[in-house]
Amino acid sequence: MKFPSAGGRHLNPDPASSVCVTNLMRGMGVAARAAAPKIRLAGADTRTAAIAAMARAIRAGAEPILAANRVDMLAGAEAGLSPSMLDRLFLDATRLAGIAAALDDIAALPDPLGPAPLGTELARWSRPNGLDIARVAVPIGVIGIIFEARPNVVADAAALCLRAGNCAILRAGSEAFATATAIHAALRSALRDTGLPEAAIGLVPITDRAAVGEMLTGLDGALDLLIPRGGKSLVERVQKEARIAVLSHLEGICHTYIHRAADREMAVRIALNAKMRRTGLCGATECLLIDQDCADELLPAIAAALLAAGCELRGDAWACEIVPAMIPARPEDWGHEFLAPILAIRVVDDLDSAMDHIARFGSAHTECIVTENQEAAARFLAEVDSAIVLHNASTQFADGGEFGMGAEIGIATGRLHARGPVGARELTTFKYVLRGTGQIRPG
Amino acid sequence: MKFPSAGGRHLNPDPASSVCVTNLMRGMGVAARAAAPKIRLAGADTRTAAIAAMARAIRAGAEPILAANRVDMLAGAEAGLSPSMLDRLFLDATRLAGIAAALDDIAALPDPLGPAPLGTELARWSRPNGLDIARVAVPIGVIGIIFEARPNVVADAAALCLRAGNCAILRAGSEAFATATAIHAALRSALRDTGLPEAAIGLVPITDRAAVGEMLTGLDGALDLLIPRGGKSLVERVQKEARIAVLSHLEGICHTYIHRAADREMAVRIALNAKMRRTGLCGATECLLIDQDCADELLPAIAAALLAAGCELRGDAWACEIVPAMIPARPEDWGHEFLAPILAIRVVDDLDSAMDHIARFGSAHTECIVTENQEAAARFLAEVDSAIVLHNASTQFADGGEFGMGAEIGIATGRLHARGPVGARELTTFKYVLRGTGQIRPG
Repeated sequence: MKFPSAGGRHLNPDPASSVCVTNLMRGMGVAARAAAPKIRLAGADTRTAAIAAMARAIRAGAEPILAANRVDMLAGAEAGLSPSMLDRLFLDATRLAGIAAALDDIAALPDPLGPAPLGTELARWSRPNGLDIARVAVPIGVIGIIFEARPNVVADAAALCLRAGNCAILRAGSEAFATATAIHAALRSALRDTGLPEAAIGLVPITDRAAVGEMLTGLDGALDLLIPRGGKSLVERVQKEARIAVLSHLEGICHTYIHRAADREMAVRIALNAKMRRTGLCGATECLLIDQDCADELLPAIAAALLAAGCELRGDAWACEIVPAMIPARPEDWGHEFLAPILAIRVVDDLDSAMDHIARFGSAHTECIVTENQEAAARFLAEVDSAIVLHNASTQFADGGEFGMGAEIGIATGRLHARGPVGARELTTFKYVLRGTGQIRPG
Repeated sequence: MKFPSAGGRHLNPDPASSVCVTNLMRGMGVAARAAAPKIRLAGADTRTAAIAAMARAIRAGAEPILAANRVDMLAGAEAGLSPSMLDRLFLDATRLAGIAAALDDIAALPDPLGPAPLGTELARWSRPNGLDIARVAVPIGVIGIIFEARPNVVADAAALCLRAGNCAILRAGSEAFATATAIHAALRSALRDTGLPEAAIGLVPITDRAAVGEMLTGLDGALDLLIPRGGKSLVERVQKEARIAVLSHLEGICHTYIHRAADREMAVRIALNAKMRRTGLCGATECLLIDQDCADELLPAIAAALLAAGCELRGDAWACEIVPAMIPARPEDWGHEFLAPILAIRVVDDLDSAMDHIARFGSAHTECIVTENQEAAARFLAEVDSAIVLHNASTQFADGGEFGMGAEIGIATGRLHARGPVGARELTTFKYVLRGTGQIRPG
């Protein structure tokens, strides 16, 4: 149970009132479920208009949103939030303009359901009895999004859900509660102005942790999917406790493997970018593997570039021998997500050893091979069973925008429904439409 | 805890040995996980050869399989299994030939991964920076299948998982344990003969219910998906307690809606077939809705056909007034899965009332509209949010074979990953393969 100080405008029920939280949350579920057919059947143009109206409402509501953010920032500083947490929470005019611009981008995305109430045909075929079968795209339904400090998630997630014809129930961390509430008010006004039900995008109006517990059980059937957005402990809790489907990634323990036939200059360039462009991204490389055949020649150049960029290198015994400036890696450095300028480095025997290391220590997120040998590349791409595998390109491309998907709601490392960047298309599912002329089934 | 008498050849650990069950099950998980890359990368021809070899092994092993089935049948009769349960359990030469023939059918299905180790390309595009992005089909991985009495599930499920490049861990109900063990021995010999690891298709060698509990938690990450095959209580338990992804349907509460513009003869024909062709199928219609505008004229003919076929009719007040031979429906008859020659019948105001009834009482499985009015049909097909919606065709077409998918492992009524019949294609997922020429991500 948490009693946040931010704003004091939201309910803080005591532990005895868990029935009250259950009722509140289920009520939100019923409202979202009732709104779902209207969003699903609205057609692409209406959804586009609503998302564009959201962008305008955010711009028009800048003043109350920034004021609410100051409340959260003050409360966060008082509560002793870390500088990086406060930075994630912070909004100014520029960042808010960025949020509105992202909504415009999502409004411009192709609608995965298409213009008509009946979704885009994904496949269509006929049976010998004349039955016509079509697989058509439909929204998933009502999506629960549990996030922490980043206020932009309210707008991004809501718009992306809407783009794919879904409703959303958002639960903000207590740190971002005032800001999220202000942004949500703008989104609601946009829905109202477009003639769509406001309940299509709900924000949980309390910070009580029991609300998360309710969402994990699916709100009595009202939620079809949960997406956690935040730190490892949040994602871990959702993955562990959710009784409904979850799309998420817990960790991005990404590997870059320098094969013996790597182009020297390319290997240095990719290793540097994969690790250091942004060390906090889930697609940042956390471990570099390098073939023993080329380690003597190549590792010093790679290490020099990384050290010059301020990266700490933790090598196995062999790597430390080649580059004495490395720190000896501890066993727990393999398979560790540093999210920092720290890189684990291991010298491997060959392609098979590299793939064994990845299978053992990776998180099935993103792995890269750098090589000019097409056969080795083909084996790596086929055999490494991660959501994203790359040949001769930086792991930092693990991003929906870089894939050309426009916005993404996250990266999925599970195996069902969607893997890799989750965009609007991945927020849809399908149904079968069968058109007959009176066919009955014989036998 | 259950101590089945069948055969006496399997372990019956006492409750104190739950650590032993955990170790056994996790060992099976580790073995299947280790086998998974070999199955995944084997290529279509090898998988086809293995499935064809399974069919041959079943035929060659008919004698021990039928002997084992006699053991199960005797134990089942002693234990007082219902006649329908005993019928599901029973095998003779004809039924066993049917199991082998089904394997031949699955061997002939197109392989959803394609011939090469790298799966079939589902999509491929290029980015302005020259990065080439492909979405390729890959297997889900290791699939857990929990079933009850039908021994054919061992062969069907194993072969369908293999067709899509997956491994499987099967858990048979104690009723079918001896038969399942004998069939499994044949499947293993076929894997061995094809040079594939036997652990690719595991059968839990105990009937202890704790084994199911272990599978529900995913065997420490070894299981990617659970598929329950059996009665409602089994599916309900799996849906409620599983901590990993599940593809299943709990109930098929299917509706046939006779719109006022229905063709009279077609309405009678479809209603009769949808209910009575096989009443025990999940695609059998359980509730008939009929427009008030045509009920006076049409319902007597529909009722007469159903009554003549031996169907009990439970109508609302209006329907009973039109057809006095009907029994008044009780509230619990709406949304009830009879799986028997019993049909609930309600007279509705119009299309909207019919769709409201379906949204409230249906199980999102399969619903049909019978009408000559294209506009009404279009609305029904778009607005009814079930896995399968039909216009002018029997709900009994809800079947992978009838869809042209060859074999199916079941029907999914959840919303994620797959809906409707689950065939080989639905037992795959995808990954992204990015091919570059040294691209690094700017910014």
